[in-house]
Amino acid sequence: MADTVTLTFEPDGKTVTDNPKSILETAQGAGIALRGECGGVGVCGKCRVQITKSYGTLSPVTEKETKLLTPAELAGGMRLACQARVLAGKATVFVPPESRNEAREISGTALEGHAVLGPAVKKIACSLPRPTLADTTPDLERLAAALGRDLSGIPLPVLANLPGTLRAGDWTVTAVFWKDEPVAIESGDTTEEMYGLAIDVGSSKIICHLLNLATGKTVAQDHAENPQVMYGEDIVSRITFAAKAPENTKKLQSLVVGTINTLVARMCEGAGIPADRIYECVFDGNTVMHHLLLGIDTKYIGISPFLPALKSPVSVPAREIGLSICPEGKVTSLPLIAGYVGSDAVADLMLTRIYERTACSLVIDIGTNSELMLGNSQRIVVCSAPSGPSFEGAQISSGMKAVGGAIETFAIRDGRISYTTIGGKKPKGICGSGVIDLVAELYSAGIITKTGKFADLTHPRIKKPEGSVPVFVVAPGTETESGRDITVTEKDINEFLLAKGSLRAGWTILAEKYGIDPKTLDRVYLAGSFGTHINIKNAMALELLPQVPEERVVLAGETAVGGSKLALLSLHEREAIRPVLDRVEYVELSVEKSFNREYLRSIPIYHMIAGRQG
Amino acid sequence: MADTVTLTFEPDGKTVTDNPKSILETAQGAGIALRGECGGVGVCGKCRVQITKSYGTLSPVTEKETKLLTPAELAGGMRLACQARVLAGKATVFVPPESRNEAREISGTALEGHAVLGPAVKKIACSLPRPTLADTTPDLERLAAALGRDLSGIPLPVLANLPGTLRAGDWTVTAVFWKDEPVAIESGDTTEEMYGLAIDVGSSKIICHLLNLATGKTVAQDHAENPQVMYGEDIVSRITFAAKAPENTKKLQSLVVGTINTLVARMCEGAGIPADRIYECVFDGNTVMHHLLLGIDTKYIGISPFLPALKSPVSVPAREIGLSICPEGKVTSLPLIAGYVGSDAVADLMLTRIYERTACSLVIDIGTNSELMLGNSQRIVVCSAPSGPSFEGAQISSGMKAVGGAIETFAIRDGRISYTTIGGKKPKGICGSGVIDLVAELYSAGIITKTGKFADLTHPRIKKPEGSVPVFVVAPGTETESGRDITVTEKDINEFLLAKGSLRAGWTILAEKYGIDPKTLDRVYLAGSFGTHINIKNAMALELLPQVPEERVVLAGETAVGGSKLALLSLHEREAIRPVLDRVEYVELSVEKSFNREYLRSIPIYHMIAGRQG
Repeated sequence: MADTVTLTFEPDGKTVTDNPKSILETAQGAGIALRGECGGVGVCGKCRVQITKSYGTLSPVTEKETKLLTPAELAGGMRLACQARVLAGKATVFVPPESRNEAREISGTALEGHAVLGPAVKKIACSLPRPTLADTTPDLERLAAALGRDLSGIPLPVLANLPGTLRAGDWTVTAVFWKDEPVAIESGDTTEEMYGLAIDVGSSKIICHLLNLATGKTVAQDHAENPQVMYGEDIVSRITFAAKAPENTKKLQSLVVGTINTLVARMCEGAGIPADRIYECVFDGNTVMHHLLLGIDTKYIGISPFLPALKSPVSVPAREIGLSICPEGKVTSLPLIAGYVGSDAVADLMLTRIYERTACSLVIDIGTNSELMLGNSQRIVVCSAPSGPSFEGAQISSGMKAVGGAIETFAIRDGRISYTTIGGKKPKGICGSGVIDLVAELYSAGIITKTGKFADLTHPRIKKPEGSVPVFVVAPGTETESGRDITVTEKDINEFLLAKGSLRAGWTILAEKYGIDPKTLDRVYLAGSFGTHINIKNAMALELLPQVPEERVVLAGETAVGGSKLALLSLHEREAIRPVLDRVEYVELSVEKSFNREYLRSIPIYHMIAGRQG
Repeated sequence: MADTVTLTFEPDGKTVTDNPKSILETAQGAGIALRGECGGVGVCGKCRVQITKSYGTLSPVTEKETKLLTPAELAGGMRLACQARVLAGKATVFVPPESRNEAREISGTALEGHAVLGPAVKKIACSLPRPTLADTTPDLERLAAALGRDLSGIPLPVLANLPGTLRAGDWTVTAVFWKDEPVAIESGDTTEEMYGLAIDVGSSKIICHLLNLATGKTVAQDHAENPQVMYGEDIVSRITFAAKAPENTKKLQSLVVGTINTLVARMCEGAGIPADRIYECVFDGNTVMHHLLLGIDTKYIGISPFLPALKSPVSVPAREIGLSICPEGKVTSLPLIAGYVGSDAVADLMLTRIYERTACSLVIDIGTNSELMLGNSQRIVVCSAPSGPSFEGAQISSGMKAVGGAIETFAIRDGRISYTTIGGKKPKGICGSGVIDLVAELYSAGIITKTGKFADLTHPRIKKPEGSVPVFVVAPGTETESGRDITVTEKDINEFLLAKGSLRAGWTILAEKYGIDPKTLDRVYLAGSFGTHINIKNAMALELLPQVPEERVVLAGETAVGGSKLALLSLHEREAIRPVLDRVEYVELSVEKSFNREYLRSIPIYHMIAGRQG
């Protein structure tokens, strides 16, 4: 048994006593963020450290070190951490900034996702010995030996051009790996150029971020409408269209891929980055968006028992789906949970990290199908509540999306009506957050009953147009963009109540399953852009959210793309979520005996609002 | 746009209307089996045709034609098809028998490849529990659980159709694995239907066997000419063509793949087997054929130090090279040894198994480049001898391939000349085995000297045509198919002696390297179809082979496709050859100091033949 040695790492100031092994191994064991792209075989030269003090014996300088370090550097105590060993005694090792793997902040969401940078993509540059008649090792085996890596899985299109690639770079090349798979070989040293994409494929919007995988920085972001809306606003219409003809799935796939390609081209041009230096694209989306991007049959998601084709994450070569990045680079999906709980919900889990805490939290991601997740480090129960599109402004006669001109807040104080619009523009309609305020305030003011009917048709703001149903005038034509009144009907209010009933029934049943009183939840996360606009008091009064102390509600923002970014930048984060998902319990509301009862009970308005008891 | 012209080819009776181009190109386009060994550049003189009628304009006689055709032949309408064009109108073109590419007979191998049946392909059928609202495991995870296998590597196109596949078979399916990778999922139980292909991709011939992987039986076999010959008979012309433009490698690839697809379709139709039930294709070929089938850059095989892109075996999805079998089934190459020692030589090793014996053996695989392998279980040395195409009948004025009408044996007994032809037909030319006999017998009879010169120009069978070099008449015009004499010149004999000198120098140097007297070799294997026809006594007398006791010579037959079959049927055999190849020592003759000396020493005829001392 060898004697132990003692190393002090600077500037961390961490002192470690260990058996004599490479400085890299000792550093890694001690959690020092030292780079080592080549896996410690002495070819990448990224793990250089400086021995500033030594009271003992260092291993002699190796051939690999003399190749990668200048004589001046060696004289100054610079070594490759993977090569050098402290054989006996003590040493102080300075890790310069460029040799560090540093933690970077993930932006784009209100939650801060901290992860140690560790993408699936790695680049290793090396110089090969020139072949001669006395050294006729073939190209691939020559490269594999120089890299100290197995290249047997090299994709055929990369292999086909390998002879030219090696010679074009005068035998200096950069190998690009995804995990341990080679995905590209490039002439020259291109290690600085390493990019990735994080994409949230929403049913209505596609959000795309371009990241530098060497630094973790977001270098560009862009978004576009999902062009599949031409085949239906909701996912059920898209499933129906796809099932009609075998080529329709491909058609929907190429619409999305084409849009992403446009976004990528635009971002790459703006940032001056060649698209073939993008080696991975991690995406999230609901189960149908997920399947369609990959070209997978969606038919049976729409038919009971609503099965996805798979839920595990997949990684496929970009060229197989037609994505215009490095052709053998990977398109990676986040895992799914169920037919109506997709990888956007997984992204919510990754960012809210409710699975790490002892206290129990709830995540609500509102959409046409709202995903609800409740639990802690012990147990997580999830369900999908068919809330319908009213929160997105659809199926409400004057409803609209949360864009400029939408009424987003509404209040009645002492009988006086006030509202605000997005961008302060003349009102065009009402978006989801406006509807919540409207219903809460109309009820609070006694204008509607707890079941959403008009209490008094003689109210000055209630009109009864000829041959039509009565309407409440939210904004008179004198104030609106179109000059026409913006109104709501009892049917509109009913749509909203049905949706909130579905949501409330969902979290009530989850809390019941888990065995917790919803009022005692430690945190309630509201994910998605919808959540960032709403009046939390009103949402809680209507029991859209459980009635917890207001400070426990977290507006989480665009968690979905944030989850994809986290996974793109950190293989560790990507792997860490998998055992969590293994213990997630999916609750299919449609087979829950208590669902109908709970749903009917959840539709009316019951609670005290501004001093009124429902 | 030029006007079209009309050509009728006789004796086929085929009439073709085409743009004016060389008669060779028009013939090839129409599927007329016209020879063109030099790739249509006017140097081999094998594509001679006779214009029997012309109602239009012919291109003038070129310099190359006056060089290769006599004035009498030109006067009789004889032309080189690669040079002559019909510029306008119509013409009738007679293709004489000696200008035809005829199908050769394919024999199996004389060696029996014994292997325990254990292919890389496996099929597993199973029935899945039907999903319910209480059991919503997705399709892929449901299948993986039923199979007890990891399916995470499932190819995207298979995954895309998985939902339909599972339901079409009413939840009974068959999973097909290549090694541990899933390559297909089929509805119902299809375990009985499991096929594979073994293919030898020769520079001139493609041999294809279809095997039942469940029984190991060969169910069909077929072959075709390699259509790449239109870009050159020899591999160097193909490398040159491929290097000319980026799309040319693809062009050569699709020619071969197209021919294989035709063979596969024909065999499948005959055997009543759907092509998508073929899951693996193992192939061998020289390094250039290997690279071109896979679409790999061949340029640097042709430039010193003659490196292949790789030597390890590869397995790629069939769809990536366009092979029409199960799309995700694999195309697997046998490993290579060097730029001019390809996987056909590896097949020789696999079948002769010289690496298993204690005694030392030699394998000779004769071709334009002949592969020589010498060794035993301890050590194997190999080289490639640039023997040129004379053994295949090329570069010999009356030379031809070993097909019907070729003179394959020749003898002089007591001054009387006798010969036999393949198929007992009227002679059309001389094939490789005929040339060996001819040189041995002419020398033995004192008609040529040891350096291959005519000893006595007054010999009754030696003619000296006006303005031409002296020729020896092998078969007079009265006996031949064309009515013209079949002759050899001193230049022809010299071509042969150069080739045998290269071979002899090759095995002499290998024996030297290994440290063995060639006469003491335990076995001498002669691989390839060439070997099955030759007179061993004469071949040994000329020192084409080492002079071992005759019973030690084994005519091994078509070993190449045999090696592919062995690998297809047995994963074990495929793996077993790899450590053997790791210890194979490749000898590059062009850098061997002793090669030139040994080569020059090897050209003349030195030895006792039928009582005569050279």
